[in-house]
Formats: sequence, structure tokens, C-alpha cells
Amino acid sequence: MSEFELIQSYFKPLQCDSEAVDLGIGDDCALLRCPTGYRVASSVDTLVAGTHFFPSMPAEQLGYKCLAVNLSDLAAMGAKPAWFTLALTMPEVDTDWLAAFVTGLSSLANQYSLPLVGGDTTRGPLSITIQVQGLLPINDALCRHGAQIGDGIYVSGTLGDAAAGLQLTQQAITAPPRSLTVAEQYAISRFTRPSPRVGLGQALLPIANAAIDISDGLIADLQHILTASGVGAELQQQAIPLSTRLQDAKQRYHDALYGGEDYELCYTVAKDKQQQLESLPFDSYRIGTIIADPILKLYDER
Amino acid sequence: MSEFELIQSYFKPLQCDSEAVDLGIGDDCALLRCPTGYRVASSVDTLVAGTHFFPSMPAEQLGYKCLAVNLSDLAAMGAKPAWFTLALTMPEVDTDWLAAFVTGLSSLANQYSLPLVGGDTTRGPLSITIQVQGLLPINDALCRHGAQIGDGIYVSGTLGDAAAGLQLTQQAITAPPRSLTVAEQYAISRFTRPSPRVGLGQALLPIANAAIDISDGLIADLQHILTASGVGAELQQQAIPLSTRLQDAKQRYHDALYGGEDYELCYTVAKDKQQQLESLPFDSYRIGTIIADPILKLYDER
Repeated sequence: MSEFELIQSYFKPLQCDSEAVDLGIGDDCALLRCPTGYRVASSVDTLVAGTHFFPSMPAEQLGYKCLAVNLSDLAAMGAKPAWFTLALTMPEVDTDWLAAFVTGLSSLANQYSLPLVGGDTTRGPLSITIQVQGLLPINDALCRHGAQIGDGIYVSGTLGDAAAGLQLTQQAITAPPRSLTVAEQYAISRFTRPSPRVGLGQALLPIANAAIDISDGLIADLQHILTASGVGAELQQQAIPLSTRLQDAKQRYHDALYGGEDYELCYTVAKDKQQQLESLPFDSYRIGTIIADPILKLYDER
Repeated sequence: MSEFELIQSYFKPLQCDSEAVDLGIGDDCALLRCPTGYRVASSVDTLVAGTHFFPSMPAEQLGYKCLAVNLSDLAAMGAKPAWFTLALTMPEVDTDWLAAFVTGLSSLANQYSLPLVGGDTTRGPLSITIQVQGLLPINDALCRHGAQIGDGIYVSGTLGDAAAGLQLTQQAITAPPRSLTVAEQYAISRFTRPSPRVGLGQALLPIANAAIDISDGLIADLQHILTASGVGAELQQQAIPLSTRLQDAKQRYHDALYGGEDYELCYTVAKDKQQQLESLPFDSYRIGTIIADPILKLYDER
């Protein structure tokens, strides 16, 4: 199958109509519109087989996840997704694999009417690079450097589920097959099909002072906000929302604090905006406060 | 070396000042400006070790070339380069290799004051994905589908050099070392350090009806223009500009017609714009004419 046939069969169907796209797949470049008063937010992430996912990961899950992790970066800036490109490197053309991969990709792209506008298909060890771009009003963005002393620190959902899901996925590769409990299935789905908080991100634009998505674990990602903003934080460990009861309390908190890939948002909100935050149709859990002293204090009140 | 240190040491220096960049490396997204009246042209290309380049290719050459092939796509649309992102997958962190890679990359980026605005550094088999974006007036672009019957067909420089350079590079890997002639060195440099025709592309915006860059060989790439425009072409083989005298005439013409990676532009220009074309400070060689009959006729007048 030639690259041309690959594009026609699998990738052109991902090129949905969009006012922002003057020219999509098929020329030397795509031509894209940024409306007056807006700017472009841009994120790129690579997932490499064996490094970022198990080579046995089903193609449909992979297609979903590699777009999800990029959309999560747009969500963390408050941007509205506009279009994406796909650079796909495969050892060989496996049409079953490709069809499943595109199914996963399009299930998420369709949610946001997000058109594929270009890409590159190459031969080599399996690796996927997606670049997604979104639109933001010129004078508005959720950056890491905006946290202010006294801000409440919030997260958008339960943490640690993806880490538990990763452990279960690892076990499933080596252990004999067994049926999974509902809680186990949920943890695995949080690892394989994270929900980028795109709607929340846009709703936070007039409310939050700083935001980041939690890809490397709460502590590591919150620390990026603290460093960029020149502030510190007090966290109440018991306030961190948890869902899974798969592990003992110690492991659950460890996963919530240090496990990655939850793709929830962490954001800081000034006192006078907290009522506005509570009125949003999205969950927010307060877990701490921004302080002047540039350290991260973790209180465990058990 | 952590990803943070890698970015600080090697990639942040590539983040030169630009009015178009509101926020560069270091947050969840870069924030980029498209001026009113303009739109964004976007191209992405992946180079994989063993598929697109010899694993022994010096890192400096590789850094240069992976940006050059993307800039060539912008040139083919007539766009002005604005910014780029780099997704770099490496088997291990080799600081000497990285320093050389960045030297090659920056030698070309600096020519166009092109800032690096983001990227991703991952562990895995060596592979480089660059996405470069440029700016184009809203109502102007060099597309493949614009060729008109009667247009002259032009190329911007000699063809076949890169194919000869590739052959010499392959020979050098297996044969004992020997000193190269000036002509051989030139052919190799055309393969390793192609010059994207960025200035010409922008100058062609008000002149050419269609354009493409020659990455896969003149015949294959011109055919893309013909198919997209629903037209045909007559080519005079003797009119194709050649430079190398390394091979016999038959091989030289074969390389010019079917060898790839020259990264010259091929474009079509209506009769009433041909004087304007001749007045440009760039070389143009007329090699044929667009015809109504949708086939490609190649005349060999030897």
C-alpha cells in the first residue's frame, strides 16, 4: 500500500469540515485560520513503543491516548482545540492495526470536531507524534507562572487511578488471564482512556491564575507551577480526591501524589473567584493554598 | 541528564526572539501570533534512522537537513517561516551528538530568525519529527491545484545532484577512504545540505499558478501538480538543468527525472507573468509547458 493509498483510506476520513481549515491534507502545507483577536496554542507529544506504552497495547487504545495527552496540554492552557497533525512511524503497514488506531483517534477527535490537517507516514520502529493546536483570546491564557499567594489549589478529579491501572495492565501481561472487578476495569480505563479536561480548561480562563495538567504526578506538576510563579504551597493530603480502593491507603496516597498519567488539571484560584469556580458545571476539589515561602509543605493529618 | 536540563542546555538557546511568539518553551503549550490578514501554513516531516538517513550520518548534517526538508515545504507554498517545534527520540542522551545536532539545526534556523517554540524529548530508536509553520496572506498561496493550460513549467536549479550525492555517500560507507573531487563534494553537499528555496517561494506568490518542492523526483512531484490541476505537461528533457558531470548522460537524466531530495521548486507561470519571473533575483529554468491532455509527455531531442 502506497503512502497515497494509506492517506486516502485511513487519514483523509479524519479531515472533518472546519471553518479554520482553508486547505487540509494533500498539498505541501496545510493552510489554517486564526481568527482576529485570537492566538494559537501549540502542543506536541511523542509516544514511543516500549517507552511510553506496551507494544501489546491495543491500537484503538493507543490512537485514543496519543491524542488525549495532547488535548490535555491544550486544556491546561484553556485553549479551544482547532486542528491536529499526525506523524506516524510504523514497522510495516498492518491494515487491521491502522483501522483500529484510526478508530481510537477519531473517537476523540470527533468529540471536539477536531480535523486532521496533515502529517507524515514513515517506516521504522512504532512511534506516534501528534501536534495539536488550539485557539485562545489574545490576552487570556492559563500559564504556569500566574499563581498568587493566597490562591486556593484545586484538582479536577480523583488522582492515582491511572497509576493503579498501569500496575494492573503490567500484571495482566505476565499473569494468567482472570476476570477483572468493576473497580479494576475503571482504574485500567483511567490509564488507557484518560479524559482531557478541555471544557473545564476553557471555563477556567477567566477564573484561574495558573494551571497545569497532571501527567507526571501531582507533586511534580504542582512544583512546575510553584517554580514558575516563585511561590510555595501547603497541601492537605487528606483533601486529595481518591477513587480506587484497590490498594491500601499508603499506596493510594503514594499513587495520587507521585503516580502520573491522570491528566486531571491542577489550578490555583484567588479567593474572590472561588464562588465563580463553585458555580461551574465541573468538579473542583480544593487540596491546598499557595504560600509565599517557596517550598511545598505536605500535611498528613491521619 | 533530566529532560529539564536537556531543554535548558540544548533547546532553549534555539528559542530566539520573535514578535510572533507570546510564550515559547516551558509551559504546557506555546502561544503564537498570526497577524491580522494572514494565515498559518503548516508542514510536518519525520526522519527515521535507517529509513531516511544512514545511522552514521553526522549529527550536524542531520540537524540541518531535518529542518531543511520542512522549510522546503513552506517554500513550496510561498510562506514566510515563523516558528518550529522539534520532537526528538534518541536511544540515549549523548551530549556530543546533541551539541552537533543543535549546531546544524541552528545554522539553518538562524538564517531565517526561526525560533524553536516547543517540542518533546523521548527515549527510543533515533527519529526526528519537525513541524514548521509559516505565514501567508489570507488570499494568497502556491498550491498544487492552480496550474493552467499554457503555463510555462519551471524549476529553480539543477536536478539530480542529490541522487549522485546519495550514491557517493553509500559508496563511502563500504569502500576504503579516498579523497573526493570538487564535483563529488558538491554532489554530496546537495544531498546532505539542501538549500530550501524560501526566498524564491515568497517571490513567486504573485507570479506562479502552482508550485511543489522536488523531494521525490521531478516526474513524481510534477505529476502531483498535474493530477491536482487536472492537466498534463510536455517536458523537454534537454532543458532540464544539470550540474554534475560525475555520471554518463543517461544516468544524469535518470537522476534528474527520478532521483529525489534536490529540494528545488517546480512551478508553473502564465505567459503574461513570465517577464516578471525573469526579473526576479532567483534562477528559473523553463523545462516545459502545461497542456490540456492529462498526460505527461517527455521529449528527448538527442
